[in-house]
Amino acid sequence: MRNLITKKIDLNIERNLVLINSQTLDDLKIKVSANVKVKSETSEIMCEVISTEDLVPPGKIGLNSELLNKLKIEEEQKVNVFTRRRPASLEHVKNKREGNQWSEGNIRAIVQDICGGQYTDLEISMFTLAQYYHGLSMDEVQYLTSSMAEYGTTIDFEEPVYDKHSIGGVPGNKVSLIIVPTVAAAGLLIPKTSSRAITSPSGTADTFEVLCDVNFSADEILEIAPKTRGMLVWGGTLDLSPLDEIVIHKVEQPLGIDPHSQMLASIFSKKVSTGVDYLVLDIPTGEGTKMPTKEDAIQYAHESTELGRRLGIQIEAALSYGEQPLGKAIGPALEAREALCVVHGEGPTSVLEKSNELSGILFEMAGLAQPGRGAALAADYISKGKTRAKMEEIIGVQGGDANVTPDDIVVGEFTADIKAPKDGYIVKLSNSAIKKIAYAAGTPRHKEAGIMLHKKIGDFCKQDEDLMTIYSNSEGRLTEALNLAMNLTPYILEGMIIKRISSGPKT
Amino acid sequence: MRNLITKKIDLNIERNLVLINSQTLDDLKIKVSANVKVKSETSEIMCEVISTEDLVPPGKIGLNSELLNKLKIEEEQKVNVFTRRRPASLEHVKNKREGNQWSEGNIRAIVQDICGGQYTDLEISMFTLAQYYHGLSMDEVQYLTSSMAEYGTTIDFEEPVYDKHSIGGVPGNKVSLIIVPTVAAAGLLIPKTSSRAITSPSGTADTFEVLCDVNFSADEILEIAPKTRGMLVWGGTLDLSPLDEIVIHKVEQPLGIDPHSQMLASIFSKKVSTGVDYLVLDIPTGEGTKMPTKEDAIQYAHESTELGRRLGIQIEAALSYGEQPLGKAIGPALEAREALCVVHGEGPTSVLEKSNELSGILFEMAGLAQPGRGAALAADYISKGKTRAKMEEIIGVQGGDANVTPDDIVVGEFTADIKAPKDGYIVKLSNSAIKKIAYAAGTPRHKEAGIMLHKKIGDFCKQDEDLMTIYSNSEGRLTEALNLAMNLTPYILEGMIIKRISSGPKT
Repeated sequence: MRNLITKKIDLNIERNLVLINSQTLDDLKIKVSANVKVKSETSEIMCEVISTEDLVPPGKIGLNSELLNKLKIEEEQKVNVFTRRRPASLEHVKNKREGNQWSEGNIRAIVQDICGGQYTDLEISMFTLAQYYHGLSMDEVQYLTSSMAEYGTTIDFEEPVYDKHSIGGVPGNKVSLIIVPTVAAAGLLIPKTSSRAITSPSGTADTFEVLCDVNFSADEILEIAPKTRGMLVWGGTLDLSPLDEIVIHKVEQPLGIDPHSQMLASIFSKKVSTGVDYLVLDIPTGEGTKMPTKEDAIQYAHESTELGRRLGIQIEAALSYGEQPLGKAIGPALEAREALCVVHGEGPTSVLEKSNELSGILFEMAGLAQPGRGAALAADYISKGKTRAKMEEIIGVQGGDANVTPDDIVVGEFTADIKAPKDGYIVKLSNSAIKKIAYAAGTPRHKEAGIMLHKKIGDFCKQDEDLMTIYSNSEGRLTEALNLAMNLTPYILEGMIIKRISSGPKT
Repeated sequence: MRNLITKKIDLNIERNLVLINSQTLDDLKIKVSANVKVKSETSEIMCEVISTEDLVPPGKIGLNSELLNKLKIEEEQKVNVFTRRRPASLEHVKNKREGNQWSEGNIRAIVQDICGGQYTDLEISMFTLAQYYHGLSMDEVQYLTSSMAEYGTTIDFEEPVYDKHSIGGVPGNKVSLIIVPTVAAAGLLIPKTSSRAITSPSGTADTFEVLCDVNFSADEILEIAPKTRGMLVWGGTLDLSPLDEIVIHKVEQPLGIDPHSQMLASIFSKKVSTGVDYLVLDIPTGEGTKMPTKEDAIQYAHESTELGRRLGIQIEAALSYGEQPLGKAIGPALEAREALCVVHGEGPTSVLEKSNELSGILFEMAGLAQPGRGAALAADYISKGKTRAKMEEIIGVQGGDANVTPDDIVVGEFTADIKAPKDGYIVKLSNSAIKKIAYAAGTPRHKEAGIMLHKKIGDFCKQDEDLMTIYSNSEGRLTEALNLAMNLTPYILEGMIIKRISSGPKT
């Protein structure tokens, strides 16, 4: 008797749990907390077993609606339950300890088993931590990248595809909103998939979503992008690299780790899936970024270009200054507004210049500009309104208002200003403090929340002059953000005392 | 509003899960699957959050009876719920990647946080896998061992304590049942704590439990052992090394790994907790054991003796032959019967000799015998009935029948014989096949189940002569064990064809 009848249970958790009556578990010789394979006619999933006496009667199995969906069945239907065998590929994972290299076959077997739901969360952690503690060779990274792409959706345009990617880490980095229309305006195909923020103030997908829809299927992208030449969509629904989603969600976020090899494979598997041929890779560098030293960034650039060479992707890596936020706006709506300002010819120079530099590299790769002349060509596209026209076209095609102007963007109604405690030059502006303050104000969930910086590194300010303004759509969150700003010292003024420690009153 | 009222929920799982209404979670800004600290007036535990709409009303928190017990509260009582902060010691765990050494302070902080329930299962896996993939230096193993003992129960006898420990791996290794009364009969104090089997046929605690109780508190041990000079108890209830229990249960068993450093710290933390001064360490060696080569075993012996030196424990490590089961009996009841036979002067030579060798080493360490003369002294204790008298005394004090004889032991009523397929000498007897067959027959849960070997390596047998007999208390399990025996080829006879592979019929 391994057939059980489904019962819907009102329990939500990011973990596959099934409820089985304790008597049925005894009959099936299954232990509490065992991992079992639950199989419907069309699907199967690995689940952990909870025992109950009252919530589910004997012979039934309790699943929540999400698991019923995954199994593509409803209540009162039959499923089969099997005791799980440890997947054979786990031996390869363990072997990493002896410093063994994984073969292409080893890696494909691991990726197949993880994507097929054969690994428990703990076993996925073993795979990720093997990389974290032992690292992978370039051969292994290549096999991992290819296998990850192989088990995901493939989007094939049958023409050269251009792309821009930033490894992230710097708040306010809204340049993709400007680069995509600039490059597309020149006729190059740049169907950019991007991510949403988790704890950073805004991902490119979050920012562009202020202006239009970013949820498109692979078929829709294949239909639209060749016409507009550019799109900006959220990659999350496309299933480009299922293993990446699993590893990020189950291990990297909970443990706060991001193995170097997995980070490379994560980025490049999606580039392989979307058929990218030419890529400009933005590597923000400096204190407070993912690449604290120039040496780290250069090594990463070399690894990326080598991996690109092996995968048939031509890459230009660009180290960029990342020790303070880019531009003045941080948070989805504020960043979308600033990007609009730039294409209207009113934005901050830092955003404009970085966009032009990166667009220019793609122009040079495409042979549209001589080496060293790409940025000037990009500047031309902006100043002549070609970027703006293309951006409006893309916004329209993606279901937004093509005539949107910076003034149309709704930002948080509750605001608070942070003022300079004394006269002086700004010598430091902390990425991590800015991120935390923006998060407290409501980003990335509340698009209207964020920060406008009025001063940046090198600027002089008078005592009581505004340094920055925090925006929120909730008074409570604004207060929290303000308190945090007082504690974290996001700005350092030259000669400022950061903290005073007193010995207490004289006795 | 972070006060919630408890509600008892009928869900059993080896994981701390709490149910909270989705509306309450929104109010508290807690996400599904978040880790929270649940605090009663006297206790606190880390739990993972399940969201529900119907099973628990707003303002309440659903906990199963086990969690209510841990919090020392009942239904309808108040608890506080806090969002969890990632423990600071996790940074030390991560740092292992750069090849950093853990300081004594680092390790103590990690052990304290894990024992205090501050780590999630995934974070505990990160700690264990850091050891698995990077290894620990002898300094680190020493600090880990001391910290693990520090957070456990301490048993202090205020006199020299002797002990025997086997790293395990060989079925039928019942020698502790003979060594403890032999050593105690000589007046040395040997209050041995031992483990239960998980998948092996029988742990020393399982075997001795056939004869008497093995569950004693630290206070009872402190009272009884100094009088009888020897005891054989289960260490599991004594909480000698809480971290060890957690790591074994949460990571090592599910992943099937056992980092070398953790294995050393596991054994020695319990020796420190029980105040052991003199230890003979049995290291079974050879194919099918934990130490497949002599080199592995020698390295392990060196590490153990060095760790002992640092911890103030005098150790003699003894490499023993482990390529086949020890003696003829495998399984709790059969092994208890064989141990009784040995002290009655009727047991197999291999068990008698190994017991005498190990008892003899302790005699030599205690100065009761000249070097090289200890085994002869131990043989004397057995042949003169002193070991038997002491064993009967210990069984009596531990609540068993002091007059028990081998014939009193109940073994499985269902039996099946495995016969020799042809004439020949036995050249191999597989530990792992024997373990699997015994497990199928019912060991270690069903004490009457097991295997009696009639022939061992080097014995000659005629075709159809009995090689071994399987015992079980269930006909179904006996059939399963028999089928397994047919498939696994536990015995290899010289010149036997193990497997025939045919190319199929000629076409």
